[in-house]
Amino acid sequence: MRILVALGGNALAREGQRGTWQEQLDNARTVARAVADLHARGHEVIVTHGNGPQVGSLAIQQRGSMREVPALPLDALVAMTQGLLGYLFQQAIAEVAPHVPTAAIVTRVRVDPADPAFANPAKPIGPYYGEAEALKRAHADGWTVGPDSGRGWRRLVPSPRPLEILECDRIRMLADRGTLVIAGGGGGVPVAANGAPRGVEAVIDKDRTSLVLADAAGCDTLLMVTGVDRVALDFGTRWQRELARLTVAQAVRHLREGEFPPGSMGPKVEAGAAFARDGKRAIITSPERIAEAIAGNSGTWIVPDTEGPSALAWAA
Amino acid sequence: MRILVALGGNALAREGQRGTWQEQLDNARTVARAVADLHARGHEVIVTHGNGPQVGSLAIQQRGSMREVPALPLDALVAMTQGLLGYLFQQAIAEVAPHVPTAAIVTRVRVDPADPAFANPAKPIGPYYGEAEALKRAHADGWTVGPDSGRGWRRLVPSPRPLEILECDRIRMLADRGTLVIAGGGGGVPVAANGAPRGVEAVIDKDRTSLVLADAAGCDTLLMVTGVDRVALDFGTRWQRELARLTVAQAVRHLREGEFPPGSMGPKVEAGAAFARDGKRAIITSPERIAEAIAGNSGTWIVPDTEGPSALAWAA
Repeated sequence: MRILVALGGNALAREGQRGTWQEQLDNARTVARAVADLHARGHEVIVTHGNGPQVGSLAIQQRGSMREVPALPLDALVAMTQGLLGYLFQQAIAEVAPHVPTAAIVTRVRVDPADPAFANPAKPIGPYYGEAEALKRAHADGWTVGPDSGRGWRRLVPSPRPLEILECDRIRMLADRGTLVIAGGGGGVPVAANGAPRGVEAVIDKDRTSLVLADAAGCDTLLMVTGVDRVALDFGTRWQRELARLTVAQAVRHLREGEFPPGSMGPKVEAGAAFARDGKRAIITSPERIAEAIAGNSGTWIVPDTEGPSALAWAA
Repeated sequence: MRILVALGGNALAREGQRGTWQEQLDNARTVARAVADLHARGHEVIVTHGNGPQVGSLAIQQRGSMREVPALPLDALVAMTQGLLGYLFQQAIAEVAPHVPTAAIVTRVRVDPADPAFANPAKPIGPYYGEAEALKRAHADGWTVGPDSGRGWRRLVPSPRPLEILECDRIRMLADRGTLVIAGGGGGVPVAANGAPRGVEAVIDKDRTSLVLADAAGCDTLLMVTGVDRVALDFGTRWQRELARLTVAQAVRHLREGEFPPGSMGPKVEAGAAFARDGKRAIITSPERIAEAIAGNSGTWIVPDTEGPSALAWAA
C-alpha cells in the first residue's frame, strides 16, 4: 500500500514551548516512529508537512536584520523550511529506524496566476503586530494586512489552489524504490507557471497540496495527522461526538453546514472527501493513534459512499 | 557521461552586490544555461554548490532576532541553504530549459566525531566582529574565534573530512533516470554517525564533498566551477602562467610546494588530483567556459599520469 502521511504543524511545534531545534527534534520522534513503522510493514510512504511556525520565525528574522541582510521573498522562505524540516524528519527517523532510506525533496507547486485568491489575500502568516504598525508596513511594503483571531494584526497572503506538483514523477520514482520521501513541505513552493515557473508570494494550503500529491503519486491512503484522535461534530460543545467513519456524502453535508472551521478541520475533511470519492480511503487522526487508525481501530475514516451505512444496509 | 558540476560561491554571489534574491537568480542563469546544455547533450549531471554567503546571512539573522526566535544550530542552517539554493537553481534552470527535470535533495554527510578537525576549528564562518565583541561571544556561546584575512574576527568551526554521502544511492537513482540532481550543498549537512546520525556544528569543505560524491555516484568527470578560466602558477605575479593540463604527479608537486592557497584553489586541485588518480578527469574552469572546457578547449584538465607529457612522448 502507498500511504501519504500529511503532518500538521503540531507534529513539531507545541503550545508553551519556545520552538528550539531540540524541542522540535523531540516532538518529531513520536510521528517519526509511527511513520517508520508503516515503512517497516512494507508500505510505501510519502510524508508532507506544515511549516507555519517555522516560516513565521523566518519572516521575523528577515525583518530583524534588514539593514545587514536583504529580506528574501516568501517562496524562498518556504523552500528554506523544506530544507530545514526535511532534514529534521530525516534525523528523527534515523534515530528510531536507522536503516530506513529517506530523502527530502524540494517541491514546487504550480498555481494559476489568475486564481481569484490573488485578488483576495486571506491566509495570515508571520508575526502579530499592533494595528498601527501593521498599517505602516502595509503601506511601506505593499502588504495586505488584517486582524487575526483576536491576537493582533498580521500579514495576509493569497492561498491559491495547487494544480500540479512539479517534482511528482521524481517523488514517485523514489517511493517506488522503497525510499521514504519527505516532500511538499509547507504546501509546496508556489510557482506561477506560464512557460518558466516564477515564484509567487503566496502560501498554498498543505492539505490541498497533500491531496494533489496523493492522487498524482498513486497513493491508496491519505492519512492526515493533526491534534485530535478523531473528527468531531459539535466540537467543543457538550454535544461533541467523535466520528469513526464518514462517507463522502456525509462529509460534504457537514462541510456545507459549516460544521468544521475553515482554517483547521475544514480543509482536511474537504481533502479527505475528494480523495475518498475515487474509491480510496482518507484517515484523520493524531500522531499517537497512527498505527491504530491504519488498522481501523481509531481515527476518522472517510470512505466512498458505497461503503457507507446505506451500502451496508443493502449488503445485509 | 556522468558529470559532477561543483559550483563555487561566486556562481551566485558577486562582489559589490547586496545579495538580493533577484541578483542571485540573475547570477545563477549563466551557470544554469551551461549545466542545462550538458544535460541536453545527453550527459547525466549532478550539481553541488557552495553556501558561504548564504549561511553567513542566516547566521546574522539568527543573532539579530534571538529574543523572539531561538537560534538554530549550524547543521540546521546548512540544511536551510540546501532548500534555498536548490530551489534557486531549479528555477534558474527552468528559465533557460523548461523541460529538464530537476530535483534538489537534502544531503547529509557522515563525518568522524574523532576527526582531528574538531580539536582545531579553523574554518571562518558568519559575520566579522571587532576583537572585543568576538571574545565576548566566544565566552558566552563557547565559540572558537580568530582573526580572518585582516577584516576582523570571526567564528571558527571545525571542517572535518567527509566520509560518506548518506543519500548517495537516492541521488544516483535519480541521475540514472535522467534527472538533473542538485545535492551536497554547502558541503552537505555534517552528521556524526555512530548508530543514529547526530548533526554537528561544523562546515565540510565543498570540494572534498564533491569528490566523495563524484566517486560514489560513479561520475566520469568532476568539473569544478570557480572565478577563473584556468588554474595558474605564480598567480597574481608578473610570472603568472595559466595551465591547460596538469598530471596528478604535477598537481601533487605544486600542492606540496604551496603553489595554491589553502582556502581557494588548493582544495580544488587536491580534489581534482585525487579524482584523476583513478583514471578519470577533473576540470577547473569559470562559469563562462564550461562548454569549451568540457570539449577540451579551455579550463585546466587534471589527468592521470599516464596521459601526461611523458606518456605523450612515449606515444610519439
